[in-house]
Amino acid sequence: MIELTKQKRQMNLGAFFMIPGHHVAAWRHPESQTDDILSFELYRQLAQTAERGKFDMLFFADGYAVHDRDGVGIEQTVNVRPDPLPLLSALSVVTKHIGLTATASTTYNEPFHLARKFATIDHLSRGRAAWNVVTSSSEAEALNFSKDHHLEHSKRYERAEEFVEVVKKLWDSWEDHALLIDRESARFADPTLVHQLNHKGKWFSVKGPLNISRPVQGHPVIIQAGSSESGKELAAKTAEVIFTAWQTLGEAQNFYKDVKGRLKKYGRSAESLKIMPGVFPVIGRTEKEANEKKQHLVELIPEKVGVGLLSALISYDLSNFPVDEPLPNLPDIKDINGAKTRFQLVKDLGDRENLTIRQLYQRVAGARGHREIKGTPIQIADQLQEWFEHGAADGFNIMPPYLPAGLEDFVDLVIPELQNRGLFREEYTGQTLRDHLGLQRPSNHFNQINV
Amino acid sequence: MIELTKQKRQMNLGAFFMIPGHHVAAWRHPESQTDDILSFELYRQLAQTAERGKFDMLFFADGYAVHDRDGVGIEQTVNVRPDPLPLLSALSVVTKHIGLTATASTTYNEPFHLARKFATIDHLSRGRAAWNVVTSSSEAEALNFSKDHHLEHSKRYERAEEFVEVVKKLWDSWEDHALLIDRESARFADPTLVHQLNHKGKWFSVKGPLNISRPVQGHPVIIQAGSSESGKELAAKTAEVIFTAWQTLGEAQNFYKDVKGRLKKYGRSAESLKIMPGVFPVIGRTEKEANEKKQHLVELIPEKVGVGLLSALISYDLSNFPVDEPLPNLPDIKDINGAKTRFQLVKDLGDRENLTIRQLYQRVAGARGHREIKGTPIQIADQLQEWFEHGAADGFNIMPPYLPAGLEDFVDLVIPELQNRGLFREEYTGQTLRDHLGLQRPSNHFNQINV
Repeated sequence: MIELTKQKRQMNLGAFFMIPGHHVAAWRHPESQTDDILSFELYRQLAQTAERGKFDMLFFADGYAVHDRDGVGIEQTVNVRPDPLPLLSALSVVTKHIGLTATASTTYNEPFHLARKFATIDHLSRGRAAWNVVTSSSEAEALNFSKDHHLEHSKRYERAEEFVEVVKKLWDSWEDHALLIDRESARFADPTLVHQLNHKGKWFSVKGPLNISRPVQGHPVIIQAGSSESGKELAAKTAEVIFTAWQTLGEAQNFYKDVKGRLKKYGRSAESLKIMPGVFPVIGRTEKEANEKKQHLVELIPEKVGVGLLSALISYDLSNFPVDEPLPNLPDIKDINGAKTRFQLVKDLGDRENLTIRQLYQRVAGARGHREIKGTPIQIADQLQEWFEHGAADGFNIMPPYLPAGLEDFVDLVIPELQNRGLFREEYTGQTLRDHLGLQRPSNHFNQINV
Repeated sequence: MIELTKQKRQMNLGAFFMIPGHHVAAWRHPESQTDDILSFELYRQLAQTAERGKFDMLFFADGYAVHDRDGVGIEQTVNVRPDPLPLLSALSVVTKHIGLTATASTTYNEPFHLARKFATIDHLSRGRAAWNVVTSSSEAEALNFSKDHHLEHSKRYERAEEFVEVVKKLWDSWEDHALLIDRESARFADPTLVHQLNHKGKWFSVKGPLNISRPVQGHPVIIQAGSSESGKELAAKTAEVIFTAWQTLGEAQNFYKDVKGRLKKYGRSAESLKIMPGVFPVIGRTEKEANEKKQHLVELIPEKVGVGLLSALISYDLSNFPVDEPLPNLPDIKDINGAKTRFQLVKDLGDRENLTIRQLYQRVAGARGHREIKGTPIQIADQLQEWFEHGAADGFNIMPPYLPAGLEDFVDLVIPELQNRGLFREEYTGQTLRDHLGLQRPSNHFNQINV
């Protein structure tokens, strides 16, 4: 019996932190902690709560600009946040098991710097680092990096693909046993196990080697979020986890099947890539309490913030349209130089349920295009289980509406229910994030080709 | 009496960590810890020891390449190290008072990223961050960042000056009281206290604002090391601490007077810039023990490593010259596209004492051009006091030969002697690094000009 239970497929869970919560009005909620959102204590508490819940990893999104759409972004939303990379390494000191994931963009960084920073965090945390690879699509970010315009979609993905390739080779540039540290013979390292990349590509020329030895995990776990055609192809080639956003079971199943089907041509197994849709859980001890919690959040959204958020999600300015009427005619998706999948998702939701702009922003203000699940702990677990067992997800990225209370609710109420069903671990059994996710340690590029 | 003691001028001390020690053969020394130089435990121990010693700050140098001169760099020296920025934030969690300083280059970074990372560390540590501003002068680094050649000396400094200016404005872009966090009126921040830079310079265009609020210290402390003409001018304009390298009292006094004299034209007082030469202390309980310690280290230097190190220090390859003869004729200093002051310093030392290449590398292998002080704790304290009281230094950057033992010796043997003389604090009296150093919190650029 115990053996059988052990072998049952279990879901992977990420704790996705937006401070002070995923809902755009979270900071106004009485249970969110906003008094000192840049002090370490809040983050320590969140990380330790997620670890108490046995989450596979915690995750911070990121961006490189202040967004002030219609002048209300600064006034009415949270636009300051710590850089997630130094934050992760600080959190590595106060946690022991949980994986540590940060977003970093390939559009305005250098492969050498990111390879080294994630390798450092992987060493300091003894194998718990993950990199959520994104491209930067906002004009506001371009203008902070001496560019006039942001890169066009296909170029961003082309650059991202080369960037990831270079980073992986940098991680491999010191083979696992390169350090000898033999004081007597004065051999610190074996030079035959240390490699130059001599990479010369379209976007980067990087000689290498990196100046830190191979990460504990070989490579920190590679995560991606893009769900466009180029995003899916890049993920099938390079990602080990996909954070994605779907509203309906059918859409999620199609995506799951599509991406898993692309793995074979890159010589990869279906298990080598975990698909984890984001979910925004509104948890009540009763259904009524859950509905009231949701309604409370909706009422906290300032109108201009709602319209601005919706405009940002679809990369199209809605501020001059009547807020109590349906979406206007939108441009063709091919003319959207932003997150194309997000555009389609939000547009489909509006069309399908014939929602006004106000109704639509109220619907997406928390989950921002991700799936909202609402109800009692049993109902929440049911909704996760349905997708997990019907070919739509390997796990979920949990997006608490407000923090820390929304995370505590999930850990104290939903996780025990998932554990009772045998769907989630009771204890950590491995040491590294790869262990938690069931991902293999990658072989070394330089070793494979017998350099 | 107590009042008088309190008012006595006291020195500032930095703990400068090269792992596992400043001496090039430190890793071969039986008392250095090299078994796991990428695990956090070593750094935790060092930081806590330095804090026990009441150091103003700890400091990590950095670089962006593996140096493998003559093929012995990888084999016989330590070429792997954590990225100091994530390391500092991890150390902020296990310390309470000590300042946290990292080197980061203006040559291969973006102002937005560095401003944000140092601001993050300053917030997480509640006001203890400092940035050692350097330019990158090695070809090996250029080749890791898609460049064919490294930037020429004057261009590096021009870029550095603009870089620091942009970073400071980014730190100022959220004024101190910009965050309101008023849930009731839905006002998170006051937009009139948040500023765009709209910077358009020769090297950078940065719109801003930064996406993190003003650091606890206003600006993290700005440190510089360059001692060339452009380095001194940049320091007089922008630095609050100078890490510098001098062998003799006279040289150090000239430099001290020169740089302090340049402050007035930038509207700065002499106290607004602290000059802290590096010193490499070899401490014995007796003079004989100190001499033996030094001799032991010298004997551990592999010949090729010694020649390679000397070559790197003067940016000139000495590998084809006889090692037991004096330096050959060297190029004119104006043709050296490296650290010009270091070149002159090492050349002068060789000429002054008529040293062979071997003798010279043995002399500089630890201190790398910095001052070596050797002897009993009383003799070490005498040597520090002499410079401190004779217009050569406001304090010192202590460079232990090997770690952690070399640091422990300084903390346990030398610091009490300095404290007995009233030359160094017995307890921390302030909260931030600026408090320790006696530096003012900077006013806000945007506020000054009444934007």
